[in-house]
Amino acid sequence: MRNIKLLVAYQGTRYLGWQKTEMGLSIEEELEKSLSQILGHKVFLQAASRTDAGVHARGQVVNFFTPILIDLEKLQKSLNGTLPKDISIFRVEEAPLDFHPTLQARGKEYLYSVCLGEVQLPFWRYFSWHFGYPIQLDQIEKGARHLIGEHDFSALSNERQESNRRTIFAISLEPSLDQLKIRVSGNNFLYKMVRNIVGTLLYIGCGKIEANALPLILESKQRSRAGVTAPAHGLILEKVNYE
Amino acid sequence: MRNIKLLVAYQGTRYLGWQKTEMGLSIEEELEKSLSQILGHKVFLQAASRTDAGVHARGQVVNFFTPILIDLEKLQKSLNGTLPKDISIFRVEEAPLDFHPTLQARGKEYLYSVCLGEVQLPFWRYFSWHFGYPIQLDQIEKGARHLIGEHDFSALSNERQESNRRTIFAISLEPSLDQLKIRVSGNNFLYKMVRNIVGTLLYIGCGKIEANALPLILESKQRSRAGVTAPAHGLILEKVNYE
Repeated sequence: MRNIKLLVAYQGTRYLGWQKTEMGLSIEEELEKSLSQILGHKVFLQAASRTDAGVHARGQVVNFFTPILIDLEKLQKSLNGTLPKDISIFRVEEAPLDFHPTLQARGKEYLYSVCLGEVQLPFWRYFSWHFGYPIQLDQIEKGARHLIGEHDFSALSNERQESNRRTIFAISLEPSLDQLKIRVSGNNFLYKMVRNIVGTLLYIGCGKIEANALPLILESKQRSRAGVTAPAHGLILEKVNYE
Repeated sequence: MRNIKLLVAYQGTRYLGWQKTEMGLSIEEELEKSLSQILGHKVFLQAASRTDAGVHARGQVVNFFTPILIDLEKLQKSLNGTLPKDISIFRVEEAPLDFHPTLQARGKEYLYSVCLGEVQLPFWRYFSWHFGYPIQLDQIEKGARHLIGEHDFSALSNERQESNRRTIFAISLEPSLDQLKIRVSGNNFLYKMVRNIVGTLLYIGCGKIEANALPLILESKQRSRAGVTAPAHGLILEKVNYE
Protein backbone atom coordinates (compact mmCIF):
# COMPACT_ATOMS: atom_id res chain seq x y z
CA MET A 1 0.00 0.00 0.00
CA ARG A 2 1.17 3.53 -0.72
CA ASN A 3 0.26 6.72 1.12
CA ILE A 4 0.11 9.56 -1.40
CA LYS A 5 0.21 13.19 -0.30
CA LEU A 6 -1.15 15.98 -2.49
CA LEU A 7 -0.70 19.73 -2.32
CA VAL A 8 -3.93 21.20 -3.67
CA ALA A 9 -4.98 24.75 -4.63
CA TYR A 10 -8.53 25.79 -5.44
CA GLN A 11 -10.89 28.66 -5.91
CA GLY A 12 -13.77 27.82 -3.59
CA THR A 13 -16.40 30.05 -5.24
CA ARG A 14 -18.41 27.29 -6.95
CA TYR A 15 -18.24 24.80 -4.10
CA LEU A 16 -20.10 24.13 -0.88
CA GLY A 17 -16.70 23.68 0.75
CA TRP A 18 -14.03 21.02 0.94
CA GLN A 19 -16.21 18.32 2.42
CA LYS A 20 -18.52 16.01 0.48
CA THR A 21 -22.21 16.76 0.89
CA GLU A 22 -25.47 15.63 -0.65
CA MET A 23 -26.36 19.29 -1.13
CA GLY A 24 -24.07 20.01 -4.06
CA LEU A 25 -20.54 20.38 -5.34
CA SER A 26 -17.51 19.89 -3.10
CA ILE A 27 -13.79 19.91 -3.79
CA GLU A 28 -13.39 16.57 -2.02
CA GLU A 29 -15.91 14.92 -4.32
CA GLU A 30 -14.34 16.34 -7.49
CA LEU A 31 -10.88 15.19 -6.42
CA GLU A 32 -12.05 11.72 -5.33
CA LYS A 33 -13.87 11.34 -8.63
CA SER A 34 -10.80 12.22 -10.69
CA LEU A 35 -8.51 10.02 -8.59
CA SER A 36 -10.88 7.04 -8.75
CA GLN A 37 -11.16 7.45 -12.50
CA ILE A 38 -7.37 7.53 -12.99
CA LEU A 39 -6.48 4.80 -10.46
CA GLY A 40 -9.41 2.49 -11.21
CA HIS A 41 -10.45 2.06 -7.58
CA LYS A 42 -12.47 4.02 -5.06
CA VAL A 43 -10.36 6.61 -3.25
CA PHE A 44 -10.95 8.15 0.18
CA LEU A 45 -9.35 11.46 1.02
CA GLN A 46 -8.25 13.00 4.28
CA ALA A 47 -7.57 16.73 4.29
CA ALA A 48 -5.68 19.06 6.61
CA SER A 49 -8.55 21.56 6.65
CA ARG A 50 -12.24 21.31 5.88
CA THR A 51 -12.56 24.70 4.30
CA ASP A 52 -16.05 26.24 4.20
CA ALA A 53 -18.15 27.16 1.17
CA GLY A 54 -16.45 29.92 -0.79
CA VAL A 55 -13.09 29.62 1.01
CA HIS A 56 -10.03 29.18 -1.21
CA ALA A 57 -6.80 27.25 -0.78
CA ARG A 58 -3.30 27.70 -2.03
CA GLY A 59 -1.83 24.94 0.14
CA GLN A 60 -4.43 22.38 1.18
CA VAL A 61 -2.75 19.08 2.10
CA VAL A 62 -4.55 15.84 1.36
CA ASN A 63 -3.67 12.15 1.44
CA PHE A 64 -5.09 8.84 0.23
CA PHE A 65 -4.05 5.21 0.04
CA THR A 66 -3.58 3.20 -3.15
CA PRO A 67 -1.96 -0.08 -4.16
CA ILE A 68 -1.43 1.20 -7.73
CA LEU A 69 2.19 1.69 -8.86
CA ILE A 70 1.47 4.73 -10.99
CA ASP A 71 4.27 7.21 -11.66
CA LEU A 72 3.53 10.25 -9.51
CA GLU A 73 4.44 12.85 -12.12
CA LYS A 74 2.05 11.13 -14.51
CA LEU A 75 -0.61 11.08 -11.82
CA GLN A 76 -0.21 14.83 -11.27
CA LYS A 77 -0.52 15.53 -15.01
CA SER A 78 -3.58 13.29 -15.34
CA LEU A 79 -5.23 14.96 -12.35
CA ASN A 80 -4.58 18.46 -13.68
CA GLY A 81 -5.93 17.31 -17.03
CA THR A 82 -9.20 15.92 -15.65
CA LEU A 83 -10.00 18.21 -12.70
CA PRO A 84 -12.12 21.35 -13.20
CA LYS A 85 -9.99 24.43 -13.89
CA ASP A 86 -10.63 25.83 -10.41
CA ILE A 87 -8.74 22.96 -8.74
CA SER A 88 -5.00 22.42 -9.31
CA ILE A 89 -2.58 19.87 -7.95
CA PHE A 90 0.75 21.50 -7.15
CA ARG A 91 2.61 18.51 -5.79
CA VAL A 92 2.18 14.74 -5.57
CA GLU A 93 4.52 12.77 -3.34
CA GLU A 94 4.84 9.50 -1.49
CA ALA A 95 4.44 9.90 2.27
CA PRO A 96 5.27 7.50 5.11
CA LEU A 97 2.39 5.09 5.69
CA ASP A 98 1.59 6.73 9.03
CA PHE A 99 1.32 10.25 7.58
CA HIS A 100 -1.99 11.92 8.41
CA PRO A 101 -2.62 15.49 7.19
CA THR A 102 -4.57 16.68 10.26
CA LEU A 103 -3.02 14.74 13.10
CA GLN A 104 0.55 15.57 12.13
CA ALA A 105 0.02 19.22 11.26
CA ARG A 106 2.02 21.56 13.49
CA GLY A 107 0.40 24.72 12.26
CA LYS A 108 -1.63 26.44 9.60
CA GLU A 109 -1.44 29.77 7.92
CA TYR A 110 -4.43 31.67 6.52
CA LEU A 111 -4.56 34.86 4.51
CA TYR A 112 -7.60 37.13 4.61
CA SER A 113 -8.09 39.97 2.11
CA VAL A 114 -10.17 43.06 2.82
CA CYS A 115 -10.98 45.64 0.15
CA LEU A 116 -10.99 49.10 1.72
CA GLY A 117 -11.81 51.31 -1.24
CA GLU A 118 -15.23 52.88 -1.64
CA VAL A 119 -15.76 50.75 -4.75
CA GLN A 120 -14.41 47.23 -5.07
CA LEU A 121 -12.26 46.25 -8.01
CA PRO A 122 -14.29 43.55 -9.87
CA PHE A 123 -11.18 41.32 -10.07
CA TRP A 124 -11.23 40.77 -6.32
CA ARG A 125 -14.94 40.24 -5.80
CA TYR A 126 -14.54 36.50 -5.14
CA PHE A 127 -11.36 36.98 -3.11
CA SER A 128 -11.83 39.89 -0.77
CA TRP A 129 -14.33 41.32 1.70
CA HIS A 130 -15.49 44.76 0.68
CA PHE A 131 -15.50 46.66 3.98
CA GLY A 132 -17.11 50.03 3.55
CA TYR A 133 -15.98 51.85 6.73
CA PRO A 134 -12.77 53.81 7.29
CA ILE A 135 -10.39 51.93 9.59
CA GLN A 136 -7.51 52.76 11.89
CA LEU A 137 -4.66 50.41 11.23
CA ASP A 138 -2.90 51.09 14.53
CA GLN A 139 -6.00 49.99 16.44
CA ILE A 140 -6.15 46.74 14.44
CA GLU A 141 -2.47 46.15 15.24
CA LYS A 142 -3.13 46.78 18.91
CA GLY A 143 -6.06 44.35 18.85
CA ALA A 144 -4.02 41.71 17.02
CA ARG A 145 -1.31 41.81 19.71
CA HIS A 146 -3.89 40.75 22.33
CA LEU A 147 -4.59 37.57 20.33
CA ILE A 148 -1.02 36.31 20.02
CA GLY A 149 -0.16 33.36 22.23
CA GLU A 150 -2.27 30.66 23.89
CA HIS A 151 -5.81 31.62 24.84
CA ASP A 152 -9.26 30.15 25.19
CA PHE A 153 -10.81 31.25 21.87
CA SER A 154 -14.44 30.33 22.66
CA ALA A 155 -15.49 33.94 22.06
CA LEU A 156 -14.05 33.68 18.55
CA SER A 157 -15.48 30.31 17.57
CA ASN A 158 -18.90 29.28 16.29
CA GLU A 159 -18.67 25.83 17.84
CA ARG A 160 -17.54 24.44 21.19
CA GLN A 161 -14.86 21.79 21.33
CA GLU A 162 -13.73 19.88 24.40
CA SER A 163 -10.94 22.41 24.74
CA ASN A 164 -11.06 25.78 23.06
CA ARG A 165 -7.48 26.68 23.93
CA ARG A 166 -5.45 27.40 20.82
CA THR A 167 -2.18 29.18 20.09
CA ILE A 168 -1.85 32.00 17.60
CA PHE A 169 1.77 32.27 16.45
CA ALA A 170 1.48 35.50 14.52
CA ILE A 171 -0.89 37.98 12.93
CA SER A 172 0.62 40.28 10.35
CA LEU A 173 -1.04 43.14 8.52
CA GLU A 174 -0.14 43.85 4.91
CA PRO A 175 -1.81 47.11 3.89
CA SER A 176 -1.68 48.42 0.33
CA LEU A 177 -3.42 51.24 -1.51
CA ASP A 178 -6.90 49.73 -1.43
CA GLN A 179 -6.49 46.41 0.34
CA LEU A 180 -5.61 45.09 3.75
CA LYS A 181 -4.29 41.55 3.94
CA ILE A 182 -4.33 39.86 7.32
CA ARG A 183 -2.09 36.82 7.71
CA VAL A 184 -2.88 34.57 10.65
CA SER A 185 -0.83 31.56 11.70
CA GLY A 186 -1.51 29.25 14.59
CA ASN A 187 -1.20 25.68 15.81
CA ASN A 188 -4.82 24.83 15.08
CA PHE A 189 -8.06 26.70 14.57
CA LEU A 190 -11.60 26.36 15.85
CA TYR A 191 -14.59 26.49 13.50
CA LYS A 192 -14.75 29.93 11.80
CA MET A 193 -12.04 31.19 14.16
CA VAL A 194 -9.97 32.98 11.49
CA ARG A 195 -13.04 34.70 10.06
CA ASN A 196 -14.15 35.71 13.56
CA ILE A 197 -10.68 37.08 14.30
CA VAL A 198 -10.80 39.13 11.09
CA GLY A 199 -14.34 40.37 11.72
CA THR A 200 -13.42 41.37 15.27
CA LEU A 201 -10.22 43.13 14.17
CA LEU A 202 -12.17 45.07 11.55
CA TYR A 203 -14.76 46.06 14.18
CA ILE A 204 -11.83 47.31 16.26
CA GLY A 205 -10.48 49.12 13.21
CA CYS A 206 -13.71 51.04 12.64
CA GLY A 207 -14.26 51.79 16.32
CA LYS A 208 -17.15 49.44 17.11
CA ILE A 209 -15.02 47.52 19.63
CA GLU A 210 -12.09 48.84 21.66
CA ALA A 211 -8.76 47.10 21.15
CA ASN A 212 -8.21 46.97 24.90
CA ALA A 213 -11.53 45.20 25.40
CA LEU A 214 -10.23 42.12 23.61
CA PRO A 215 -8.73 40.33 26.66
CA LEU A 216 -12.06 40.70 28.45
CA ILE A 217 -13.98 39.48 25.43
CA LEU A 218 -11.75 36.38 25.29
CA GLU A 219 -12.24 35.84 29.04
CA SER A 220 -16.02 36.13 28.70
CA LYS A 221 -16.02 33.22 26.22
CA GLN A 222 -19.14 34.80 24.69
CA ARG A 223 -19.25 34.77 20.91
CA SER A 224 -21.80 37.61 20.95
CA ARG A 225 -19.32 40.05 22.50
CA ALA A 226 -16.82 39.75 19.63
CA GLY A 227 -17.20 41.09 16.08
CA VAL A 228 -18.98 39.74 13.03
CA THR A 229 -17.85 36.62 11.13
CA ALA A 230 -15.98 37.92 8.09
CA PRO A 231 -17.39 36.44 4.86
CA ALA A 232 -15.88 33.20 3.56
CA HIS A 233 -14.77 34.44 0.16
CA GLY A 234 -11.97 36.64 1.57
CA LEU A 235 -10.19 33.64 3.09
CA ILE A 236 -7.35 31.54 1.66
CA LEU A 237 -5.77 28.53 3.37
CA GLU A 238 -2.18 29.36 2.57
CA LYS A 239 -0.11 26.62 4.10
CA VAL A 240 -0.08 23.65 6.44
CA ASN A 241 3.17 23.12 8.31
CA TYR A 242 4.45 19.72 9.36
CA GLU A 243 7.85 20.63 10.83
CA MET B 1 -25.70 69.66 -22.08
CA ARG B 2 -23.24 67.99 -19.74
CA ASN B 3 -20.22 65.88 -20.67
CA ILE B 4 -19.82 63.17 -18.03
CA LYS B 5 -16.57 61.24 -17.64
CA LEU B 6 -16.46 57.81 -16.02
CA LEU B 7 -13.56 55.76 -14.69
CA VAL B 8 -14.54 52.14 -15.23
CA ALA B 9 -13.05 48.83 -14.09
CA TYR B 10 -14.14 45.44 -15.34
CA GLN B 11 -13.29 41.78 -15.54
CA GLY B 12 -13.54 41.02 -19.27
CA THR B 13 -13.96 37.25 -18.97
CA ARG B 14 -17.68 37.08 -19.81
CA TYR B 15 -17.62 39.69 -22.55
CA LEU B 16 -16.82 39.83 -26.25
CA GLY B 17 -14.89 43.01 -25.49
CA TRP B 18 -15.63 46.64 -24.83
CA GLN B 19 -17.43 47.32 -28.09
CA LYS B 20 -21.09 46.59 -28.79
CA THR B 21 -21.67 43.65 -31.11
CA GLU B 22 -24.61 41.61 -32.34
CA MET B 23 -22.67 38.47 -31.41
CA GLY B 24 -23.13 38.71 -27.65
CA LEU B 25 -22.31 40.55 -24.43
CA SER B 26 -20.18 43.68 -24.37
CA ILE B 27 -19.19 46.04 -21.59
CA GLU B 28 -20.31 49.03 -23.67
CA GLU B 29 -23.82 47.62 -24.03
CA GLU B 30 -24.15 46.81 -20.31
CA LEU B 31 -23.02 50.28 -19.35
CA GLU B 32 -25.21 52.05 -21.93
CA LYS B 33 -28.17 50.00 -20.76
CA SER B 34 -27.67 50.94 -17.10
CA LEU B 35 -27.09 54.60 -17.92
CA SER B 36 -30.15 54.82 -20.18
CA GLN B 37 -32.26 53.19 -17.48
CA ILE B 38 -31.07 55.64 -14.79
CA LEU B 39 -31.15 58.80 -16.94
CA GLY B 40 -34.29 58.02 -18.89
CA HIS B 41 -32.77 58.71 -22.32
CA LYS B 42 -30.61 56.81 -24.76
CA VAL B 43 -26.91 57.17 -23.99
CA PHE B 44 -23.97 56.84 -26.37
CA LEU B 45 -20.54 56.09 -24.98
CA GLN B 46 -17.06 56.88 -26.22
CA ALA B 47 -14.20 54.97 -24.65
CA ALA B 48 -10.43 55.50 -24.46
CA SER B 49 -9.73 51.90 -25.46
CA ARG B 50 -11.77 49.25 -27.26
CA THR B 51 -10.45 46.34 -25.22
CA ASP B 52 -10.73 42.88 -26.82
CA ALA B 53 -12.72 39.88 -25.61
CA GLY B 54 -11.35 38.68 -22.28
CA VAL B 55 -9.21 41.78 -21.64
CA HIS B 56 -9.74 43.50 -18.28
CA ALA B 57 -9.62 47.14 -17.23
CA ARG B 58 -8.77 48.93 -14.04
CA GLY B 59 -8.82 52.38 -15.58
CA GLN B 60 -10.96 52.54 -18.71
CA VAL B 61 -12.08 56.13 -19.39
CA VAL B 62 -15.48 56.73 -20.93
CA ASN B 63 -17.68 59.75 -21.61
CA PHE B 64 -21.25 60.52 -22.61
CA PHE B 65 -23.54 63.53 -22.96
CA THR B 66 -26.71 64.14 -20.98
CA PRO B 67 -29.03 67.07 -20.28
CA ILE B 68 -30.12 65.50 -16.96
CA LEU B 69 -29.12 67.37 -13.77
CA ILE B 70 -28.55 64.23 -11.72
CA ASP B 71 -26.17 64.39 -8.74
CA LEU B 72 -22.99 62.58 -9.81
CA GLU B 73 -22.43 60.74 -6.55
CA LYS B 74 -25.97 59.43 -6.79
CA LEU B 75 -25.37 58.45 -10.41
CA GLN B 76 -22.26 56.47 -9.40
CA LYS B 77 -24.15 54.64 -6.65
CA SER B 78 -27.06 53.84 -8.98
CA LEU B 79 -24.69 52.54 -11.63
CA ASN B 80 -22.80 50.33 -9.19
CA GLY B 81 -26.15 49.07 -7.93
CA THR B 82 -27.52 48.11 -11.35
CA LEU B 83 -24.41 47.02 -13.29
CA PRO B 84 -23.31 43.35 -13.25
CA LYS B 85 -20.77 42.65 -10.50
CA ASP B 86 -17.90 42.37 -12.98
CA ILE B 87 -18.20 46.06 -13.94
CA SER B 88 -17.53 48.84 -11.40
CA ILE B 89 -17.60 52.60 -11.71
CA PHE B 90 -14.71 54.14 -9.76
CA ARG B 91 -15.29 57.79 -10.52
CA VAL B 92 -17.95 59.98 -12.12
CA GLU B 93 -17.11 63.58 -12.92
CA GLU B 94 -18.16 66.49 -15.08
CA ALA B 95 -15.74 67.12 -17.95
CA PRO B 96 -15.39 70.13 -20.28
CA LEU B 97 -17.81 69.86 -23.20
CA ASP B 98 -14.92 69.27 -25.62
CA PHE B 99 -13.44 66.38 -23.62
CA HIS B 100 -12.98 63.23 -25.74
CA PRO B 101 -11.45 60.11 -24.13
CA THR B 102 -9.47 58.95 -27.18
CA LEU B 103 -8.54 62.17 -28.92
CA GLN B 104 -7.21 63.83 -25.77
CA ALA B 105 -5.38 60.83 -24.33
CA ARG B 106 -1.64 61.44 -24.00
CA GLY B 107 -0.78 57.88 -23.15
CA LYS B 108 -1.96 54.51 -21.90
CA GLU B 109 -0.56 51.97 -19.51
CA TYR B 110 -1.19 48.24 -19.73
CA LEU B 111 -0.24 45.46 -17.35
CA TYR B 112 0.27 41.91 -18.58
CA SER B 113 0.56 38.95 -16.18
CA VAL B 114 2.38 35.73 -17.01
CA CYS B 115 2.25 32.67 -14.74
CA LEU B 116 5.62 30.93 -14.82
CA GLY B 117 5.06 27.99 -12.49
CA GLU B 118 4.64 24.47 -13.79
CA VAL B 119 1.06 24.50 -12.50
CA GLN B 120 -1.11 27.62 -12.55
CA LEU B 121 -2.78 28.84 -9.39
CA PRO B 122 -6.55 28.59 -10.11
CA PHE B 123 -7.09 32.14 -8.78
CA TRP B 124 -5.20 33.61 -11.70
CA ARG B 125 -6.64 31.52 -14.51
CA TYR B 126 -8.69 34.42 -15.92
CA PHE B 127 -5.94 36.96 -15.29
CA SER B 128 -2.64 35.49 -16.39
CA TRP B 129 -1.08 33.60 -19.27
CA HIS B 130 0.28 30.25 -18.17
CA PHE B 131 3.61 30.07 -19.99
CA GLY B 132 5.11 26.61 -19.61
CA TYR B 133 8.74 27.22 -20.66
CA PRO B 134 11.66 28.39 -18.51
CA ILE B 135 12.62 31.97 -19.30
CA GLN B 136 15.70 34.15 -18.97
CA LEU B 137 14.70 37.46 -17.48
CA ASP B 138 17.86 39.28 -18.60
CA GLN B 139 17.08 38.42 -22.23
CA ILE B 140 13.55 39.80 -21.88
CA GLU B 141 14.99 42.99 -20.38
CA LYS B 142 17.43 43.26 -23.27
CA GLY B 143 14.59 42.77 -25.77
CA ALA B 144 12.40 45.33 -24.02
CA ARG B 145 15.11 47.98 -24.29
CA HIS B 146 15.00 47.68 -28.10
CA LEU B 147 11.30 48.62 -28.06
CA ILE B 148 11.55 51.84 -26.04
CA GLY B 149 11.15 55.03 -28.05
CA GLU B 150 9.51 55.81 -31.37
CA HIS B 151 9.43 53.00 -33.94
CA ASP B 152 7.33 51.64 -36.76
CA PHE B 153 5.51 48.84 -34.95
CA SER B 154 3.99 47.12 -38.03
CA ALA B 155 5.77 43.88 -37.10
CA LEU B 156 3.98 43.96 -33.75
CA SER B 157 0.50 44.81 -34.96
CA ASN B 158 -2.29 42.71 -36.45
CA GLU B 159 -3.66 45.58 -38.50
CA ARG B 160 -2.18 48.29 -40.70
CA GLN B 161 -2.94 51.93 -39.98
CA GLU B 162 -1.98 54.89 -42.11
CA SER B 163 1.03 55.32 -39.87
CA ASN B 164 2.31 52.54 -37.67
CA ARG B 165 4.79 54.73 -35.83
CA ARG B 166 4.15 54.73 -32.10
CA THR B 167 6.17 55.64 -29.03
CA ILE B 168 6.75 53.27 -26.13
CA PHE B 169 7.58 55.28 -23.00
CA ALA B 170 8.57 52.39 -20.75
CA ILE B 171 8.45 48.64 -20.28
CA SER B 172 9.03 47.41 -16.75
CA LEU B 173 9.30 43.83 -15.55
CA GLU B 174 7.93 42.88 -12.15
CA PRO B 175 8.97 39.29 -11.42
CA SER B 176 7.76 37.43 -8.34
CA LEU B 177 7.96 33.82 -7.18
CA ASP B 178 5.67 32.37 -9.85
CA GLN B 179 4.57 35.37 -11.91
CA LEU B 180 6.06 37.90 -14.26
CA LYS B 181 4.19 41.16 -14.68
CA ILE B 182 5.05 43.27 -17.70
CA ARG B 183 4.00 46.91 -17.56
CA VAL B 184 3.94 48.74 -20.89
CA SER B 185 3.22 52.43 -21.35
CA GLY B 186 3.12 54.35 -24.60
CA ASN B 187 1.48 57.23 -26.40
CA ASN B 188 -0.91 55.05 -28.36
CA PHE B 189 -1.13 51.41 -29.37
CA LEU B 190 -1.89 49.54 -32.58
CA TYR B 191 -4.34 46.64 -32.63
CA LYS B 192 -3.03 43.78 -30.43
CA MET B 193 0.30 45.60 -30.10
CA VAL B 194 0.69 45.06 -26.34
CA ARG B 195 -0.12 41.36 -26.63
CA ASN B 196 2.31 41.02 -29.55
CA ILE B 197 5.01 42.79 -27.54
CA VAL B 198 4.44 40.40 -24.64
CA GLY B 199 4.38 37.31 -26.88
CA THR B 200 7.58 38.42 -28.59
CA LEU B 201 9.34 39.18 -25.29
CA LEU B 202 8.37 35.75 -23.97
CA TYR B 203 9.71 34.14 -27.15
CA ILE B 204 12.94 36.01 -26.50
CA GLY B 205 12.84 34.84 -22.88
CA CYS B 206 12.65 31.18 -23.84
CA GLY B 207 15.21 31.44 -26.64
CA LYS B 208 12.96 31.20 -29.69
CA ILE B 209 13.95 34.70 -30.83
CA GLU B 210 17.22 36.52 -30.09
CA ALA B 211 16.93 39.82 -28.24
CA ASN B 212 19.32 41.47 -30.67
CA ALA B 213 17.16 40.43 -33.63
CA LEU B 214 14.39 42.76 -32.48
CA PRO B 215 15.57 45.92 -34.33
CA LEU B 216 15.69 43.89 -37.57
CA ILE B 217 12.27 42.41 -36.93
CA LEU B 218 10.84 45.92 -36.42
CA GLU B 219 12.57 47.09 -39.60
CA SER B 220 11.16 44.16 -41.59
CA LYS B 221 7.60 45.26 -40.68
CA GLN B 222 6.61 41.61 -41.00
CA ARG B 223 4.26 40.35 -38.29
CA SER B 224 5.31 36.76 -39.02
CA ARG B 225 8.88 37.39 -37.86
CA ALA B 226 7.86 38.43 -34.35
CA GLY B 227 6.49 36.21 -31.56
CA VAL B 228 3.02 34.89 -30.85
CA THR B 229 0.10 37.11 -29.76
CA ALA B 230 -0.16 36.62 -25.99
CA PRO B 231 -3.70 35.59 -24.95
CA ALA B 232 -6.19 38.32 -24.09
CA HIS B 233 -6.98 37.23 -20.55
CA GLY B 234 -3.55 38.21 -19.18
CA LEU B 235 -4.05 41.86 -20.13
CA ILE B 236 -5.34 44.76 -18.02
CA LEU B 237 -5.83 48.33 -19.24
CA GLU B 238 -4.38 50.05 -16.19
CA LYS B 239 -4.59 53.73 -16.90
CA VAL B 240 -5.24 56.39 -19.50
CA ASN B 241 -3.27 59.62 -19.07
CA TYR B 242 -4.55 63.03 -20.11
CA GLU B 243 -1.75 65.26 -18.83
